[in-house]
Amino acid sequence: MNAIEDIIDSTVIGLLGDYAEKNGSYEIASFDHPDNEIIIEILTSLRKILFPGYFRNRTIKVYTLKNNLSMLLEDVIYKLSKQITIVLGGEGENDTEITKKAKEITLEFIKRLQKIREYILTDVDAAYEGDPAAYSKDEIIYSYPGLFAILVNRIAHELFLLNVPIIPRMMTEYAHRETGIDIHPGATIGKYFFIDHGTGIVIGETTVIGDNVKIYQGVTLGALSTRGGQSLKSKKRHPTIEDNVTIYSGASILGGNTVIGKDVVIGGSAFITHSVPDGAKVSVKNQELRFNYDASKPVERVNIEDDEDWFYII
Amino acid sequence: MNAIEDIIDSTVIGLLGDYAEKNGSYEIASFDHPDNEIIIEILTSLRKILFPGYFRNRTIKVYTLKNNLSMLLEDVIYKLSKQITIVLGGEGENDTEITKKAKEITLEFIKRLQKIREYILTDVDAAYEGDPAAYSKDEIIYSYPGLFAILVNRIAHELFLLNVPIIPRMMTEYAHRETGIDIHPGATIGKYFFIDHGTGIVIGETTVIGDNVKIYQGVTLGALSTRGGQSLKSKKRHPTIEDNVTIYSGASILGGNTVIGKDVVIGGSAFITHSVPDGAKVSVKNQELRFNYDASKPVERVNIEDDEDWFYII
Amino acid sequence: MNAIEDIIDSTVIGLLGDYAEKNGSYEIASFDHPDNEIIIEILTSLRKILFPGYFRNRTIKVYTLKNNLSMLLEDVIYKLSKQITIVLGGEGENDTEITKKAKEITLEFIKRLQKIREYILTDVDAAYEGDPAAYSKDEIIYSYPGLFAILVNRIAHELFLLNVPIIPRMMTEYAHRETGIDIHPGATIGKYFFIDHGTGIVIGETTVIGDNVKIYQGVTLGALSTRGGQSLKSKKRHPTIEDNVTIYSGASILGGNTVIGKDVVIGGSAFITHSVPDGAKVSVKNQELRFNYDASKPVERVNIEDDEDWFYII
Repeated sequence: MNAIEDIIDSTVIGLLGDYAEKNGSYEIASFDHPDNEIIIEILTSLRKILFPGYFRNRTIKVYTLKNNLSMLLEDVIYKLSKQITIVLGGEGENDTEITKKAKEITLEFIKRLQKIREYILTDVDAAYEGDPAAYSKDEIIYSYPGLFAILVNRIAHELFLLNVPIIPRMMTEYAHRETGIDIHPGATIGKYFFIDHGTGIVIGETTVIGDNVKIYQGVTLGALSTRGGQSLKSKKRHPTIEDNVTIYSGASILGGNTVIGKDVVIGGSAFITHSVPDGAKVSVKNQELRFNYDASKPVERVNIEDDEDWFYII
Repeated sequence: MNAIEDIIDSTVIGLLGDYAEKNGSYEIASFDHPDNEIIIEILTSLRKILFPGYFRNRTIKVYTLKNNLSMLLEDVIYKLSKQITIVLGGEGENDTEITKKAKEITLEFIKRLQKIREYILTDVDAAYEGDPAAYSKDEIIYSYPGLFAILVNRIAHELFLLNVPIIPRMMTEYAHRETGIDIHPGATIGKYFFIDHGTGIVIGETTVIGDNVKIYQGVTLGALSTRGGQSLKSKKRHPTIEDNVTIYSGASILGGNTVIGKDVVIGGSAFITHSVPDGAKVSVKNQELRFNYDASKPVERVNIEDDEDWFYII
Repeated sequence: MNAIEDIIDSTVIGLLGDYAEKNGSYEIASFDHPDNEIIIEILTSLRKILFPGYFRNRTIKVYTLKNNLSMLLEDVIYKLSKQITIVLGGEGENDTEITKKAKEITLEFIKRLQKIREYILTDVDAAYEGDPAAYSKDEIIYSYPGLFAILVNRIAHELFLLNVPIIPRMMTEYAHRETGIDIHPGATIGKYFFIDHGTGIVIGETTVIGDNVKIYQGVTLGALSTRGGQSLKSKKRHPTIEDNVTIYSGASILGGNTVIGKDVVIGGSAFITHSVPDGAKVSVKNQELRFNYDASKPVERVNIEDDEDWFYII
């Protein structure tokens, strides 16, 4: 069918013109981009290293743990140093400054794995202690989205500290896709961190969180204003949460100077833009509700009237 | 490069020490863990059984429905009984009490498939009736995240009732990842259940929901307090929602003694911690808004001033 | 084991009876259904066409851009016209009216790719300008869920305008699964659209959005009432948002007659059901909070009392 060929041809010519003219910044060099699938493979291998036995490869029927661990580490080192080389701009070249630097960063990251494991095991404990619906720690490791989001953040954060571009964010956005929990790799998080349910949580780049903090679904730890756009880059825009704080669902805590003190409890849906002292409790005053009956007396049943405008609904 | 080998070696030794010493509970026994991919395969086969023709295997060109159905059932029985054997702690052993029990549970579950199908078809009808954006029932079955989350809950709930550990939660957390809808497998849900949009919904373990209930995005059916942690396990902590109730987006209904009566409508963002009688309507009183103009008169355009502090923004 | 065979047999008979009797509408014809995996493959190819070099196929080691582009376009045309033929009801037939129509629609869609690319590049610019956490445009293209959701909407919207059933919604629900952002394919969106974080956003079918609009997580652009169900189909039920509007997290703007004027700013959690004039700013009045200390004076630390009932928590 000639029509198809004609349209393909004219579309190809049009798009090639677009690529060339309008958007020089989106170059076509095909080998200098990081690969999302490989980033996910790296995270999967790291998960096996951190929780041995849990996420094993089904095809491995017999193995000695030591050999398997060495193999997983080699796999991570090979893939990660290659991806870092790419984002540092050095792919294709051998033994250059960039490939050397990528290897150094990768090995420094590997050295930090024991610390990452130490932290993530405290998170498992915190989830088990904090959630009456948890039947076992196995269940938490296998299925809790909050634990997965924290694990990915702990990995991505170390790469962020090592000044690796793009890859840490690709990692945390993978966790965001899987869990609905959006933690920027720049966020610093202490031990025994527990996220329950989690969907809708946003934790900004310059947030600092202490030990033993508990956060529920829909919580935002955000900035007061982003109208400055790129001019605000790297400034402390997000809050500091000290040890033993609990923040219930839907609460927002905003601003780089906002410090939530030790042992504080923040109630659901509270909107906090100033610091709160140690030991405080803050909650929203009881919401005023509208009823179509006298809610102060016991009522069995309310007559239904056809009052279309009564509710704002979506 | 020796540096790499050295770092791999020392990391392996360090991690092996960690595994052995600090965390005896995270054992390395590699064959006694359930497999998330197989759990997803089981759900996929069950979806084909419940909606024949919709989610067919592309490679099957010709088949008789009856043979295909038998094959799908055998596949589910084989995989599910194996996974149940594993979580009951009996993998590797043959014809033991545990493998026998796993088979019994699996067959009891299979017997309940017709009831699950009866219920899920009512959910399709409820979505079609309730959503003006639905162009056909096909569209709902193919693409509605709410229907998928309910389907997985109906499957997982039967396994939960049969006292299968871990697997039901792995199933519902798969649905949670796919949809942002977090329904605990313990939750009991009646016929004609409709979830619209759905992202951010949380429905707790001991929730009971009647027939003909409609729930929008961001709704929480939760507990009043989880500070008791593990000591609260198995207590009724989440609300009861009776027949014909509608709950609009962002509303929270909390507490094990909270009963929302028949025919009730709960407005968006309402925060409910006490029971509501049959037929009642409850909504948030009109929110007080701040305007930078006189909102009581018609205005064409407001002058913009540079007032950086006006808005709390994130 | 006879028990298994018996249960399989009786379940097969029961389900076949169900299929035949109760639900004639869910037919078993196995070749007339669209395929979700192929829809995703089409989106993946389109993404490569729109951002050449970014999402390349790893197996292609050397290629000329022009040949690759032609191949990608042919692939999209082949798969898309086949899926459209299926949803129009004509699979299996050759050179019929339906296959002809499916080809025409597909080619018309292909012609619109340059316009889609023009728009999506403005969205990349808007994200970079608007987000201080964005380190590069690459990072946005690789990892920002908001950009992905907008990209899928721009593709699905053109197919929606060409009256293709089911497929556009399958596309946007794929984006919804990946991002937690639920944009109906019917929604009309101008240039330079920026979604930050995004989880929990709902944008309804008849929404119209101008240029340069910025939306944060949890925003709903919804309908005032859906109690009419199917009788409301195709009516304008969702708001109009004019140019240069910013809507902060958790705000809801509802109703088909609601127009948000140019240059308006809507504060977080605001609930808007009436039109707002150009240049206006609307925000929630400061929330009343409850403290367990005198919040008007500087306090170092608050004594913690055991007051179980103080907080409503979930």
